[in-house]
Amino acid sequence: MSKLNIGIIGAGRIGKVHTETAAFRLPEVSVACITDVDRDAATRLANRCGISKVVDSSEDVLADPSVEAVLICSPTDTHADLIVKAARAGKQIFCEKPIALDLARIDAALEAVAKAGVQLQIGFNRRFDANFARVRQAVAAGEIGTPRLLHIVSRDPAPPPIAYVKVSGGIFLDMTIHDFDMARFLIGDEVEEVFVAGGVMVDPRIGAAGDIDTAITMLRFRNGVIGMIDNCRQAAYGYDQRAEVHGSLGKIATENCYPNQATISTAASVGRDLPLNFFMDRYLESFAAELRSFTEAVMEGAQTAVTGEDGRIAVVMGLAARKSYDEHRPVRLEEVAGKAAAG
Amino acid sequence: MSKLNIGIIGAGRIGKVHTETAAFRLPEVSVACITDVDRDAATRLANRCGISKVVDSSEDVLADPSVEAVLICSPTDTHADLIVKAARAGKQIFCEKPIALDLARIDAALEAVAKAGVQLQIGFNRRFDANFARVRQAVAAGEIGTPRLLHIVSRDPAPPPIAYVKVSGGIFLDMTIHDFDMARFLIGDEVEEVFVAGGVMVDPRIGAAGDIDTAITMLRFRNGVIGMIDNCRQAAYGYDQRAEVHGSLGKIATENCYPNQATISTAASVGRDLPLNFFMDRYLESFAAELRSFTEAVMEGAQTAVTGEDGRIAVVMGLAARKSYDEHRPVRLEEVAGKAAAG
Amino acid sequence: MSKLNIGIIGAGRIGKVHTETAAFRLPEVSVACITDVDRDAATRLANRCGISKVVDSSEDVLADPSVEAVLICSPTDTHADLIVKAARAGKQIFCEKPIALDLARIDAALEAVAKAGVQLQIGFNRRFDANFARVRQAVAAGEIGTPRLLHIVSRDPAPPPIAYVKVSGGIFLDMTIHDFDMARFLIGDEVEEVFVAGGVMVDPRIGAAGDIDTAITMLRFRNGVIGMIDNCRQAAYGYDQRAEVHGSLGKIATENCYPNQATISTAASVGRDLPLNFFMDRYLESFAAELRSFTEAVMEGAQTAVTGEDGRIAVVMGLAARKSYDEHRPVRLEEVAGKAAAG
Amino acid sequence: MSKLNIGIIGAGRIGKVHTETAAFRLPEVSVACITDVDRDAATRLANRCGISKVVDSSEDVLADPSVEAVLICSPTDTHADLIVKAARAGKQIFCEKPIALDLARIDAALEAVAKAGVQLQIGFNRRFDANFARVRQAVAAGEIGTPRLLHIVSRDPAPPPIAYVKVSGGIFLDMTIHDFDMARFLIGDEVEEVFVAGGVMVDPRIGAAGDIDTAITMLRFRNGVIGMIDNCRQAAYGYDQRAEVHGSLGKIATENCYPNQATISTAASVGRDLPLNFFMDRYLESFAAELRSFTEAVMEGAQTAVTGEDGRIAVVMGLAARKSYDEHRPVRLEEVAGKAAAG
Repeated sequence: MSKLNIGIIGAGRIGKVHTETAAFRLPEVSVACITDVDRDAATRLANRCGISKVVDSSEDVLADPSVEAVLICSPTDTHADLIVKAARAGKQIFCEKPIALDLARIDAALEAVAKAGVQLQIGFNRRFDANFARVRQAVAAGEIGTPRLLHIVSRDPAPPPIAYVKVSGGIFLDMTIHDFDMARFLIGDEVEEVFVAGGVMVDPRIGAAGDIDTAITMLRFRNGVIGMIDNCRQAAYGYDQRAEVHGSLGKIATENCYPNQATISTAASVGRDLPLNFFMDRYLESFAAELRSFTEAVMEGAQTAVTGEDGRIAVVMGLAARKSYDEHRPVRLEEVAGKAAAG
Repeated sequence: MSKLNIGIIGAGRIGKVHTETAAFRLPEVSVACITDVDRDAATRLANRCGISKVVDSSEDVLADPSVEAVLICSPTDTHADLIVKAARAGKQIFCEKPIALDLARIDAALEAVAKAGVQLQIGFNRRFDANFARVRQAVAAGEIGTPRLLHIVSRDPAPPPIAYVKVSGGIFLDMTIHDFDMARFLIGDEVEEVFVAGGVMVDPRIGAAGDIDTAITMLRFRNGVIGMIDNCRQAAYGYDQRAEVHGSLGKIATENCYPNQATISTAASVGRDLPLNFFMDRYLESFAAELRSFTEAVMEGAQTAVTGEDGRIAVVMGLAARKSYDEHRPVRLEEVAGKAAAG
Repeated sequence: MSKLNIGIIGAGRIGKVHTETAAFRLPEVSVACITDVDRDAATRLANRCGISKVVDSSEDVLADPSVEAVLICSPTDTHADLIVKAARAGKQIFCEKPIALDLARIDAALEAVAKAGVQLQIGFNRRFDANFARVRQAVAAGEIGTPRLLHIVSRDPAPPPIAYVKVSGGIFLDMTIHDFDMARFLIGDEVEEVFVAGGVMVDPRIGAAGDIDTAITMLRFRNGVIGMIDNCRQAAYGYDQRAEVHGSLGKIATENCYPNQATISTAASVGRDLPLNFFMDRYLESFAAELRSFTEAVMEGAQTAVTGEDGRIAVVMGLAARKSYDEHRPVRLEEVAGKAAAG
Repeated sequence: MSKLNIGIIGAGRIGKVHTETAAFRLPEVSVACITDVDRDAATRLANRCGISKVVDSSEDVLADPSVEAVLICSPTDTHADLIVKAARAGKQIFCEKPIALDLARIDAALEAVAKAGVQLQIGFNRRFDANFARVRQAVAAGEIGTPRLLHIVSRDPAPPPIAYVKVSGGIFLDMTIHDFDMARFLIGDEVEEVFVAGGVMVDPRIGAAGDIDTAITMLRFRNGVIGMIDNCRQAAYGYDQRAEVHGSLGKIATENCYPNQATISTAASVGRDLPLNFFMDRYLESFAAELRSFTEAVMEGAQTAVTGEDGRIAVVMGLAARKSYDEHRPVRLEEVAGKAAAG
């Protein structure tokens, strides 16, 4: 069997997920080397996963001629530059979302990718989740007819630390960005306009940091579909990730995933354990499917499932959502896109 | 047992529901007389329900001194005038929604009621549905903490005839009006602003009639809660009536009602029969509970559960929603309320 | 509309249910008279339901020439005699289960009915419950193919008073009798043999009274189907009434009925309110459907849906079950049937 | 990190599962060598899993001094002998169920294990399934009070090939054996007596082979709990694996596992995709948890979670069940146990 040699940049939380997937679950992948600014973290991960080579820097990864593809799992502010460098080095690229928080840097990165003729996949792993994939399948196959209405509910178990909130780019670019991508993925069409109603309901410190923690974002798609995304930084019962599409022939709706299928009935209530609470548990399989998809695309020279343009549009939507919230009016994506919204 | 003597105006679809409830399910009610412009319809219903007196007109009902309370179940455009006349006749009043489609007539009716010192209850029966009542109970009792987000899904099995659409007052005053009342009921606070995204997705003839058939209406409450109402005039799988409230301590969400609790598993799928398809089946019990509530309020001299002001505000919300759709911007209720929104 | 004139014997708990149904929900029924050994109880019920005639005894009911049909809702030990007398009086008969606890009296009653050529329906109301009716429909229509396995779960919220236990005839004739009838109804075939494992797990006083409170009864049907009935006199979470049939093309299974369809998710659990706890709530609609079915059968001269033979066989099964428990071996119904098991 | 060196005997279906788990999911395990009578199969699996050493025979595995523990995944009729040899070689032993189909061979194997002082774990993987583990947890922790009634439903998607049926030992030793172990695991007590009703309902060729394909097995536990196991070799809708325990404080019941949590509502029905259909999908995680449990027990010198005695008792139950079916009477385990039933 031919194998894809990859290099990994970043051994933090998400880097760990991808490295373990590559090492233990994808026989067609071989990890050539790994790096992290915290070298000990990289070494620990390498030992655990049987990776023989820990290198000093991303430059070393990119300079390794055996590396065919790189996984960019470093902090957000390094993504765009690393994409440019990796593209210039002729590497196939998998990069975590978001590409960057401003469009100029994104466009520079995408240009470098286009120029180099390499593949780029952005880490919108939820597309590979069995639930959301099933919704997309139903819409694409016409099981529910022509789509009319879309609901996405995406609530976190608890808000991130305030320090993180301050550098996160705000709820729309940090959290809703996944839902923006999901909306486009599920409907298979582009959003033209957003309108946001939101507020600070979870923690006033989030408001003091200039962000909000709760929002409903209304979406109007080019094809007429109307959608809404419900976000909240805190849900007492855990991680709440659902979608529903209503179409001319019916609807499809997903429920959350649970650690078990047991129901306990007592004199107090009929209940079950809380849903999977941590994104790593909830989306574990999707991370594996995502990397498998990237690997296959690269090995077959096929288009990746989530392109750089997909990564750009999600950021455009985040910027438009923030503008809508600030100016309290519907905002068309073309107001912020810097070029015609792609599709 | 003391009984409440009622007169019934209107023996159409909804009049039939209330008459049967009064005759067969409320021992504390006695139907003194009934009328309808279609006298045969009134006679048939009277015979079926053991009502001995069919009269010629609403005037006859109101002139009957034995009648303590009237149920106004005639067409919408007669509601306001009948409320005025009934109030002047000193009758207690139950009136179907909406009071009227313009605020001046509503205000005249409410003024007459106030002047006469009689009770008025508006027919927002869904407040008495076990599912929605349970949501309200959870919110009111603090079971889910401070409310943050509200979802209402309200989809009809099929659109009404086009002839009806033309005189209905439009989707917001005909269909969403129930959901506007539900939103206020569930959250227990007033809406300040609405924003609508909608379209014609079900039947172009609805668009030709100047109406839309599909919409998401975003609501901003005075207390900061953000809500959204999802409406569609057609759902292939039947009548879809759900609500969800997410709060600081959790969420409460309702599912549809089904004719049975059986699940059939075959080689094709794991499924069940469609939800109750007809509003009369779905809300049968709520109609009975509604009339019981009215009867008790009148007999005890207590405030009715759904006031004339409740009826007015729902119309204000409908007018604001239409304005938002037409002008494609968020609209504050005070723009159309004609006076400060009550609460 | 032609009406059926009925007389009612017994104004206790179940008599009240049937009387209210007849008075308020069945326009085709007219209650001619009612009696009870507690005349005050009969009078109160008559007043509540608008019944003009309260008579002294069952003899008076049977002597009333306007009475076409009687509802026998008196205590079990009077059933058989009243059936005989009613049959001789030429009345159509609806009788609560069980007909009697010994087969000789049952046979005498059935003989009188046959001789008089009147109709007899036994009060196995659960056949008319929407859930169980749906299971039967699926089996009868072949939706799940040829049936193989049957499960019935039937657990009470709490055991009856010990005084009642002592005269009840035991769990099999008092409680399981409903499930025996349900088993035959769902499968549409006769049981040949039963085997019981049971014990006293709820209350030792039930054991002291010579009864048991918990049992699994295995059933072997003539057509090869194997079934089991799970009974317990006490379920902390309420009234538990379910069935499942597994066949060659799939299975159908029912869930309990709940007061509402709301789910509450908090930091503690994802749960809902307890199922309907009282048999009158759970089976309210089935009582109405049962009486409607009897009325229609009588008015159309058609066979009643639950015959005297059905009533007899359920008692045979109860006797066989007790024998199996006592002798700790499988028991064929023909051992106790006194004649070949019917079917 | 210290690692456990294991040797694997058998590269068939179940050997493949354990080998992949050991190679890819258990960092604390190192696979020293593997063997199979089909050497190509062993080689393919070794290559896929990065195992460097394929040996000729189980003797070679047992002779390898670096091998600390062996996984016996070869056909059933080799289990007992391999356990004896492995014990004599001083290896820790994981062996697939059943140990053997006759008790003399089982006893010889267990004696060798005891004499050698090595650990033995039997492959009842379902104990490690999240659903069943949750039921056990609820029972053990008293969440449902004192257990009274147990249901286990265990139906296969399709019967095995007739050739396999002939050598399988029969449904009770091949299929129900898992449920026998599950029954003891869930209740935490020993079964005293079984009674079986069964038949040939799926395929007459199974009957011609001397076996049955459908059965309900009633269990009486020493502590008074009554249980029943529902087995069928074919379920049109897939793999059906459920359990329910009813106790003095409530019940706990599990549902099947599904590939996704999506529900599709159309004009035809409200349904979802079929449950996970293949035992490898359904129980994938349980196989990993099982091997992890064995590894930990061995490394810590602790008692394994599923002992040789557990393996023996399940076979005793299978023999008793067959005897009950053949002789059509309840059979006490001590009739077939050859010694007092253990506990």
